[in-house]
Amino acid sequence: MFSPNVPPVISPSNPDPLVICWAGGSIMYPKARLDALHDGIFSVAMTLLVLDVRLPEDFHPADGGELVRGLAKLWPKFLPYLLSFTVLGLRWIANIQTRSRAEYFNREYVNWWLVYLLLITFVPFSTIVVGRYAALASAIWLYAGHTLLIALINLRIVALTPELERDDHQRRRTTSAPFLGISSLLAIGLSFADPKIALWGLALNFAQPVIERWRYGQPQTD
Amino acid sequence: MFSPNVPPVISPSNPDPLVICWAGGSIMYPKARLDALHDGIFSVAMTLLVLDVRLPEDFHPADGGELVRGLAKLWPKFLPYLLSFTVLGLRWIANIQTRSRAEYFNREYVNWWLVYLLLITFVPFSTIVVGRYAALASAIWLYAGHTLLIALINLRIVALTPELERDDHQRRRTTSAPFLGISSLLAIGLSFADPKIALWGLALNFAQPVIERWRYGQPQTD
Amino acid sequence: MFSPNVPPVISPSNPDPLVICWAGGSIMYPKARLDALHDGIFSVAMTLLVLDVRLPEDFHPADGGELVRGLAKLWPKFLPYLLSFTVLGLRWIANIQTRSRAEYFNREYVNWWLVYLLLITFVPFSTIVVGRYAALASAIWLYAGHTLLIALINLRIVALTPELERDDHQRRRTTSAPFLGISSLLAIGLSFADPKIALWGLALNFAQPVIERWRYGQPQTD
Amino acid sequence: MFSPNVPPVISPSNPDPLVICWAGGSIMYPKARLDALHDGIFSVAMTLLVLDVRLPEDFHPADGGELVRGLAKLWPKFLPYLLSFTVLGLRWIANIQTRSRAEYFNREYVNWWLVYLLLITFVPFSTIVVGRYAALASAIWLYAGHTLLIALINLRIVALTPELERDDHQRRRTTSAPFLGISSLLAIGLSFADPKIALWGLALNFAQPVIERWRYGQPQTD
Repeated sequence: MFSPNVPPVISPSNPDPLVICWAGGSIMYPKARLDALHDGIFSVAMTLLVLDVRLPEDFHPADGGELVRGLAKLWPKFLPYLLSFTVLGLRWIANIQTRSRAEYFNREYVNWWLVYLLLITFVPFSTIVVGRYAALASAIWLYAGHTLLIALINLRIVALTPELERDDHQRRRTTSAPFLGISSLLAIGLSFADPKIALWGLALNFAQPVIERWRYGQPQTD
Repeated sequence: MFSPNVPPVISPSNPDPLVICWAGGSIMYPKARLDALHDGIFSVAMTLLVLDVRLPEDFHPADGGELVRGLAKLWPKFLPYLLSFTVLGLRWIANIQTRSRAEYFNREYVNWWLVYLLLITFVPFSTIVVGRYAALASAIWLYAGHTLLIALINLRIVALTPELERDDHQRRRTTSAPFLGISSLLAIGLSFADPKIALWGLALNFAQPVIERWRYGQPQTD
Repeated sequence: MFSPNVPPVISPSNPDPLVICWAGGSIMYPKARLDALHDGIFSVAMTLLVLDVRLPEDFHPADGGELVRGLAKLWPKFLPYLLSFTVLGLRWIANIQTRSRAEYFNREYVNWWLVYLLLITFVPFSTIVVGRYAALASAIWLYAGHTLLIALINLRIVALTPELERDDHQRRRTTSAPFLGISSLLAIGLSFADPKIALWGLALNFAQPVIERWRYGQPQTD
Repeated sequence: MFSPNVPPVISPSNPDPLVICWAGGSIMYPKARLDALHDGIFSVAMTLLVLDVRLPEDFHPADGGELVRGLAKLWPKFLPYLLSFTVLGLRWIANIQTRSRAEYFNREYVNWWLVYLLLITFVPFSTIVVGRYAALASAIWLYAGHTLLIALINLRIVALTPELERDDHQRRRTTSAPFLGISSLLAIGLSFADPKIALWGLALNFAQPVIERWRYGQPQTD
């Protein structure tokens, strides 16, 4: 139906966006299916994060006060859970922001995108490590190095995305991954001073949605 | 393609609801992708609930009767599992009820919506706590406080939803989250009398589908 | 936009199948969203089944033969895993078979459908119980009672489905849930003779896909 | 609506691809729903893989160096995690490559496709076994035998897929599953020499995305 010599036009007017298509002889992968796996993996990873925030099996509090103290001791695990959920949530939002009007992507894009999803599935692991050993600088390095790598691969994927819109949207899109990268570096830097406060460098990401909304979220009255 | 000066009309007639779009200079997020993450997280959370309802690893019943007694002892975990599944299921139904005809949402909506999903992923944790320590009032406070917070954030999201339809649908929509909020407060109140019966305040939610169906579920003959 | 007095026609030609709609004053729920949660919960439940098929943490085989014997000892857990995957897979296939041309369902349908999904999320639990205690008749009763209940609720949902097609398709559709129900009853019956062979009653379901394909799977030459 | 005597034309112009349809008297299953379960199961399986890569509960490193050594000891589990993620990711990509322009599949296709998904849900199990006992040849046989079976069933599914496009696309499609099969056989062969190096046979799959991209990924200038 499609021959390499007669490349079809790839456009939103293509009637069937779920089937693979050809452009100039190379296979192109449909955005709709890539989005399905992407959203599935984010859903599972974001929900699995909570599995390590739990009270010990042999914890039998005598009264309510003891239970509250037991829950309070989970804070070192709860902060990384909040952090990782925020990092994943902001990555997910950045993903639906960065996508271009292209309906298909080439193999190079798909390869990097798989590496990116591999890093996403690894978030529950590094979250557990930093939740247990936050007092050790090397736990911070693992976690912040991981988020730094996510930011870098994300920038690579954005660079490979075809048909990006060159306007405010474009400018904004490129601030989200660098924000994560810089806060990761800040956490690594702080870990040399005191590992216990290092995660607060990454906690800057809690403020990012508010900043984004303040800068771009409201319709301009122009 | 889209410039802030020429905002496109956002309407169901938009040919491509999966790509991000602009309205008056602010980024708008497509409902279809938000729904995908929403449904994914609800799917995983609702299925993970059962993981804490389990017999001890070292439980080796000698005969069938002992197994039945072992299963009966799981009831304190089984009730919260039923409750949380019902709360999540009713929230999910309320979500597909409250959505307006708008195809896109702004950043403020998306931020609150992420907070809402964070609370959803946390349901397996508070379900485990109340399943183990239901005799302690503070376990009830954690669980019912959590469901109360879910109800409040849900009301906030509804308030931020654009293009709501102002008719019976609208009236009904706003009764579901308050119902959860009030039953949460009832559970907290009951916990001061006797924590063991407090969860039955939340169990009112088991009746909510029947009430809803009775009030609105059948075509009116008028 | 929609008023209770002017019910819209509900048909496949409706331009936006993802938004809720009205029929004669009652809310109708869109099939596309119900399918999304349904497929998500089936995906998670079918993948979680394998989590209890595992070697003990403290199993350290000295050589390959000992590992093979350790794996062979997992057979009592592996058969229920296969059975539950088959039951869930056939239920999922039956679901995409029974759906009518209707795009919307009413609240009564949605309520029963939530009960059905609750039973689906419970499959990993009863699979674990029968995997560990298959020698006890009460474990068989729990498991086969559970699959019997799934079959019954499924028949109820089919009865509530509007606009069913009355032809071969319809006839076939109603054979899948009864098949599960009868094999569940057979397993319960066998458990009175010998619990160890009772699961083979349910194993009849392994043959069902082949029977279905033989009866209906090939284009008729007429 | 559809009678066996008046088979509808099955084509991409069919207005509703989510409902079941008939062809010559046999039920046909819609690609869109099969894709939904397929992508859901792949999402969950790919994310669950990381759950066995974890430090022991009783691991309390005294300093950062000890934590790093503890993490380094996880390498035998980390390599299978990487391998299985890659195998699943490449299978997923192959799936969106092999799909034909057909919108519907018959029951025989669906039966084999369920067997294929069963094998996918089993990947976390065999990954754990090879992660723990990689020094034993029988663990390699289980894992590589499993990936070999995935490759064979995949070839069977491709053979059953209707309306395949017979061009470069087709040729390429058939190289991906054989690549997995051959690397599985290589791993089994190597296990006779030394089980510890056997997994590197399967590691050939790490190179496959690069080879694919080099051969077909770029638009031809012709």
